[in-house]
Amino acid sequence: MASLALAPAATQRDLSALFNPSSIAIVGASNDPAKYGNWLAVRALRDQKKRAAYLINKTRPTILGHPAAPSLVGLDRPVDLAVVAVPAAGFYDAIEDAIAAEVKAVVAITAGLGETGADALARQDELVARLRAAGIPMLGPNCLGVLDNTTGLDATVNDFKPGSVSIISQSGNVAIDLAEHLAEVGLGVARFASLGNCADLDVADLIDSCVDHEGTAAIAVYCEGFKNGRKFARAAARAAEAGKPVVLLSVGRGAASTRGAASHTGSLVTSGVVLEAVCDATGTELVNSPMEMANLLQALVRTTPPAGTRVAVLADGGGHASLASDSLEAAGLQVEQFTTELSTAVAAELPPNAGVSNPIDVAGGGEQDITCFSRVTRRLIQSLETDAVLMTGYFGGYGGYDPAIVPGEIQAGHDIGALVAEGGASFIAQTMFVDSKPAQALRDGGIAVYRNVEHASWALSRLTRRAQATSQPLPVLPEPTDPLTETGYWTARRALAEAGIPFVPAAEVSTLDELEAAAAGLHYPLVLKALGDEHKSDNGGVILNITDHDALISAWNDVQSRLAPPVCSIEEMAELTDAVELIIGVRRDPTFGPIVLVGIGGVYTELLKDTRCALGPVTPDQARTLLLSLRGSELLSGFRGKPAVNIDAAADLVATLSTYAAAHPEIGEIECNPIAATPAGAVALDARIILDPRP
Amino acid sequence: MASLALAPAATQRDLSALFNPSSIAIVGASNDPAKYGNWLAVRALRDQKKRAAYLINKTRPTILGHPAAPSLVGLDRPVDLAVVAVPAAGFYDAIEDAIAAEVKAVVAITAGLGETGADALARQDELVARLRAAGIPMLGPNCLGVLDNTTGLDATVNDFKPGSVSIISQSGNVAIDLAEHLAEVGLGVARFASLGNCADLDVADLIDSCVDHEGTAAIAVYCEGFKNGRKFARAAARAAEAGKPVVLLSVGRGAASTRGAASHTGSLVTSGVVLEAVCDATGTELVNSPMEMANLLQALVRTTPPAGTRVAVLADGGGHASLASDSLEAAGLQVEQFTTELSTAVAAELPPNAGVSNPIDVAGGGEQDITCFSRVTRRLIQSLETDAVLMTGYFGGYGGYDPAIVPGEIQAGHDIGALVAEGGASFIAQTMFVDSKPAQALRDGGIAVYRNVEHASWALSRLTRRAQATSQPLPVLPEPTDPLTETGYWTARRALAEAGIPFVPAAEVSTLDELEAAAAGLHYPLVLKALGDEHKSDNGGVILNITDHDALISAWNDVQSRLAPPVCSIEEMAELTDAVELIIGVRRDPTFGPIVLVGIGGVYTELLKDTRCALGPVTPDQARTLLLSLRGSELLSGFRGKPAVNIDAAADLVATLSTYAAAHPEIGEIECNPIAATPAGAVALDARIILDPRP
Repeated sequence: MASLALAPAATQRDLSALFNPSSIAIVGASNDPAKYGNWLAVRALRDQKKRAAYLINKTRPTILGHPAAPSLVGLDRPVDLAVVAVPAAGFYDAIEDAIAAEVKAVVAITAGLGETGADALARQDELVARLRAAGIPMLGPNCLGVLDNTTGLDATVNDFKPGSVSIISQSGNVAIDLAEHLAEVGLGVARFASLGNCADLDVADLIDSCVDHEGTAAIAVYCEGFKNGRKFARAAARAAEAGKPVVLLSVGRGAASTRGAASHTGSLVTSGVVLEAVCDATGTELVNSPMEMANLLQALVRTTPPAGTRVAVLADGGGHASLASDSLEAAGLQVEQFTTELSTAVAAELPPNAGVSNPIDVAGGGEQDITCFSRVTRRLIQSLETDAVLMTGYFGGYGGYDPAIVPGEIQAGHDIGALVAEGGASFIAQTMFVDSKPAQALRDGGIAVYRNVEHASWALSRLTRRAQATSQPLPVLPEPTDPLTETGYWTARRALAEAGIPFVPAAEVSTLDELEAAAAGLHYPLVLKALGDEHKSDNGGVILNITDHDALISAWNDVQSRLAPPVCSIEEMAELTDAVELIIGVRRDPTFGPIVLVGIGGVYTELLKDTRCALGPVTPDQARTLLLSLRGSELLSGFRGKPAVNIDAAADLVATLSTYAAAHPEIGEIECNPIAATPAGAVALDARIILDPRP
Repeated sequence: MASLALAPAATQRDLSALFNPSSIAIVGASNDPAKYGNWLAVRALRDQKKRAAYLINKTRPTILGHPAAPSLVGLDRPVDLAVVAVPAAGFYDAIEDAIAAEVKAVVAITAGLGETGADALARQDELVARLRAAGIPMLGPNCLGVLDNTTGLDATVNDFKPGSVSIISQSGNVAIDLAEHLAEVGLGVARFASLGNCADLDVADLIDSCVDHEGTAAIAVYCEGFKNGRKFARAAARAAEAGKPVVLLSVGRGAASTRGAASHTGSLVTSGVVLEAVCDATGTELVNSPMEMANLLQALVRTTPPAGTRVAVLADGGGHASLASDSLEAAGLQVEQFTTELSTAVAAELPPNAGVSNPIDVAGGGEQDITCFSRVTRRLIQSLETDAVLMTGYFGGYGGYDPAIVPGEIQAGHDIGALVAEGGASFIAQTMFVDSKPAQALRDGGIAVYRNVEHASWALSRLTRRAQATSQPLPVLPEPTDPLTETGYWTARRALAEAGIPFVPAAEVSTLDELEAAAAGLHYPLVLKALGDEHKSDNGGVILNITDHDALISAWNDVQSRLAPPVCSIEEMAELTDAVELIIGVRRDPTFGPIVLVGIGGVYTELLKDTRCALGPVTPDQARTLLLSLRGSELLSGFRGKPAVNIDAAADLVATLSTYAAAHPEIGEIECNPIAATPAGAVALDARIILDPRP
């Protein structure tokens, strides 16, 4: 698992003293077995042969029977890593001592600091500035410590079995939960870092460090909030590029975060949608629970990604064969019939009553000759007909009927591992006997083994999706340009038209004279819009299909008498017979910046929420992919005899809008709704910009 | 868990000799430890003190050191249950012996019978007729036996820990898989019956028997196919009524089963959709895997169904608190803020840094005083603010930090169980320490305990949905009436109009004269339909909006020259401005009979598959519920200022169509697409009937 020779991240921090210090000091070491300072000291002393340990206690000369010093300052030897677990009142003095003692890294366990209020946060920020000036990285405060099983560093209070997954977590309990799941399937932890307040080091710094860490194969992140979304995105994308996938578990993905959004775009871009967009853009795997995280990590660490979606099922009994097929198909994978050639080859390895197409049912072949599993696996892998094999059901349990089978069953597990290691197809296993020796043999051979078939199918489908995703450059925010200071329909229209968004011909009018003058330069039928209200079409503020001058005058009089709008817009009416209406918008997420939204307009968006989002700005290529990923995308490519619309023109419009929004951080929400996408092109019929109310 | 005094099912079989025989004979008892006849004999001999056991072997006088008889005929005492495990060649003789010996039930393990072909099936059917005439029920053949832990009967080859779930399964391995999952959470098996070929007893007979079985609290069914769908539906509905929920795992739910369907309705009613409709109608819980089955059974057996959707989260640490809240909301439940009153009450039980609204974060309160969990639970249950409590995270693991905590933690588990037993709110638990003694204490107190929070949330949401479902009478099939023998648009239209389906005024015309005569009696605008093709509107066979006589003649000439249709329909054009187009259809499933489909028409159905199905026939009430359960149902109740359509009229139309279809078993598919639902009513614009090609 050597890491690729990637360029260091732009903001890369040297965290060698954090994960592999030559010496460690526990500041706040304690004799009280109910205190962190005690638990940390016990571990530091236990590991003294590997790494010099110093105990610091202001008042007591001995702790746990070992000499303790009153301060970091004045120790006989320099300390690399100071783990600070003193009460909040003594924290700032302890850090000053650490700076004075020229430690190389700090882990701040102490709670009750920046998280308690604005004043405390300001003081914490000042401290971070002093530490940064001194070149000392700090994890925490309010964290649960750090561990590196590849260097034998244990400065935390829980046990993590060694392995190749690095865990970066804002919750200790969630990390323990995950580690427990990993241990159940024979995986373990390379590094654990508890994030705490992220006063200095944040999740991106820790990801960057794990990317360059030889012992890390995959990175599990539990994070409740991101301070700098784009920095996280860069680190996550770099990890994906290095072949060290980031699996992200986050919370608060409901709609609460978008309360108060003023446009459709705003209300549709929830924090969950934003996270999905960020993960899509960075090759990050978003999951919903520690269990999903462990299920996916097992496949990411062990399984070669499939080259395609064709899966062969190798089962004993019709029940597990059918359950596996159903769960694979539900996960978007294919269980296709074999060719006669492959069926014949499979049949040669199995008893006559076996099912030899897909799914394969060995039908008791396992009891008769356990080697049938490896023999059939060889046939499947050697054929070019399948991208992956899912073995499911009873493997690992045959020895339960007859102990004489056990050695052969274990050997079959090893044989399958060796076959799969040679390549040719991916392989994943489900068994009711996950804790059996044959299952362990599979794992020893590098095979992911699941207790539940839906988890195996799900993980395989995520791997497949990951393998099929085309790598796109991470969007870069342009420099901000002249900010808009006012909004309103015509301000928005003019700004966007100047940026390159095509609009229908139109004019801004306030009087009947202006209206008539403008109409003379436009082609009927026309549309009259009374401006100044949010949902113009809901309260009769938009008069469509004005076919001549008389109708125009009567529409004007009608609108004036009912709504008395301060200003109107008179516009040519787009020909919509062969058009598909789109909604296109950008919302500036406070953490991650511009998020682009596309949707098919009208009820598709409002009722069916058929919209997709991406981290902005997007290229025309990315915009096209986004449009084609809509559930209703068939409408764009010509539905039931209609001509296809010009998707490239629509994609260009999306890309242009997203680039404009990205250069305008003052804009909170921006929306063109609808866009008329026609066979000839794409044109905006409306525009709306809302400035960001945040200071 | 006493069973309610329900009336016996109409087809109720007396299965007391199957599940509680006073004596058992193993026919085909064997000394060969690789044979079922050996395994069965070992168990029968082991249980001899409970139940007399006879070993039958044609040739050997002793088996396993015990005397064996050559035949069931001529034993000194009568045998209640004959378990037949002889080779296929000797099966029919063995059954003749069983009939002659007047056994009271047969379990047929023997394979290679009716499942091997048509002739073998005919012979098997003859045998069943003889057994039925003799009043002897038979399980199998080709099955894995039967077990009843409440009577100590073990006539199978696997071990099932005792408990209250009865398993009826077409796969032995799936049953073992499920039983393993149940055992992990401290549940067990009341009865196990392996279905095999269902030559005589089918899944419905076994469900009926379990409904009347005092030791059964819930019924788990794994079934790959149903011989008599409506009989299953009646048994499942009777089980639900008796408070013994049926949880159904089935397979083959993909679209393959509807290949060759000729209408939209046909292609949309997949076997998965049919099963969902059957389960909705019968109160059956449909699941996708053994794991889901066990997760749901745990809640069904242990947890009082919540009265509503409000859930209080009781967590230790922000991570698990947030993960639980997200997973509950994703499952459709509510995690609402507490009132100040309840927050204050909760705060009184917890340390000052705890989060005391919803979700509650005890924030280390567990380490300080483990009784906080039961004290907070009391507050929550006594308030009227929550329908259920989800405790999540670390409970069961506090003793790991300090063994002195363990006894208190176990006591807290018991205390919570006692509180919950008093009622007031449902309670469900998730913990990382499912195997701990405190978790066991919770289970002993009747609380469902999950390892993964998404499973707890999912199970709770299924219980909630179940509690909220209104009980509807199971649809009954009417007697068939005069069958249709031909189809075609006008045949369908006339038949349906006669049945009470409103259509737009129209006439069938074959000549220009007929056209002009018919048009004179209709109101313009008109629609001309060239008949004889399936997707009329896709190839220009429907001319809309014919506004006058000239346009009518030109439409006629156009259609004649392009398509030369044998017959046309001239119809008034429905006013669709305020209409919502619906698709309504019925497909006759070969197993379950008429399945009703409703959808919102056009792209909603074709592109977005926004359709819902129900077991037919439906009442107008059920039809209304079905329509309102569509994703796009807001369109019906007045979307963006449009008037609401007359949903009752649409529901009447659905009910009428479903009743008509139910009385016409010769019809394979029937469809009205579109229906125009308007504020004034509902009217059909098209009709299509396809006879069932099955003999």
